[in-house]
Amino acid sequence: MFRDNLQKMVERVDGAVAGILMGFDGISVETYARGAATPDVQTVGMEFAHVLTQVRRATEALEVGGLRELQVRADNLVVLVHVLNNEYFVACAIRPDANSGKARYLLRMLAPQIQSEL
Amino acid sequence: MFRDNLQKMVERVDGAVAGILMGFDGISVETYARGAATPDVQTVGMEFAHVLTQVRRATEALEVGGLRELQVRADNLVVLVHVLNNEYFVACAIRPDANSGKARYLLRMLAPQIQSEL
Repeated sequence: MFRDNLQKMVERVDGAVAGILMGFDGISVETYARGAATPDVQTVGMEFAHVLTQVRRATEALEVGGLRELQVRADNLVVLVHVLNNEYFVACAIRPDANSGKARYLLRMLAPQIQSEL
Repeated sequence: MFRDNLQKMVERVDGAVAGILMGFDGISVETYARGAATPDVQTVGMEFAHVLTQVRRATEALEVGGLRELQVRADNLVVLVHVLNNEYFVACAIRPDANSGKARYLLRMLAPQIQSEL
C-alpha cells in the first residue's frame, strides 16, 4: 500500500527519481525508484535520516516547535522531506530542474494518507 | 554594506524576521533582525552552521554535487539558507505563514551581490 502511494507521487512529478518512507533510525519501510536512481535511494534515505536527526536537535535547541519539512538542494539532486511523526518521515528525490513546488505539494497530500496507515 | 543588503531582503518579505551572513564555522559576518527576534538570530545562525556542515557531509558522501540551498520548516519558524561558497552562507528566517518562495528568490538575488564583496 505504501509503495503504491510513493509510486504515484514519483510518477506525477516530471524529474522525480525516488520516494521513500523511512524511520529516523535509517531503516526504510518502503521505497520506490524510477529507473536506476543514482545514488541508491536506500543510501540517500539513510544519510537523510542522520541529517534529520541533527536538524531536529537544532529545532529543539532553538525551541521553534516541531520539525515539519526539510529541503536540500545540491547541484545534481534535490531532496524534499516531510516529517510524519517522531519516528517516521517520507521523502522525495527529484532532479534539480524538476518542479520542487509540486513535489512538496504531493508530499503534503501524501503525508496524512500514510499517517493513517502507519 | 552587507547589513544594508540583509535589511533590504528582510524588509521586502512580510513575515521575515532576520537575515544573517555567516561562516560555516558559526562566526557571523553580519546580521539584521526586525524587531526582537526570538530565538536570537546569532543562536539560530550557529545551530544552522552546524546543521549545514552535516548536510554538506551527506551531499559529499552521496556524490550529488555541491550543496546550494537548505530549507527547514518548523512549527514556529522557517529558515532558508543559500550557500555562497565553501566558507560562507546567507540565511533568512521567516514566520511559517510568510512567503517562502519570495524569500528564496530574494536570497538568490542577494547571493551574487554578497559574493562579489566577500
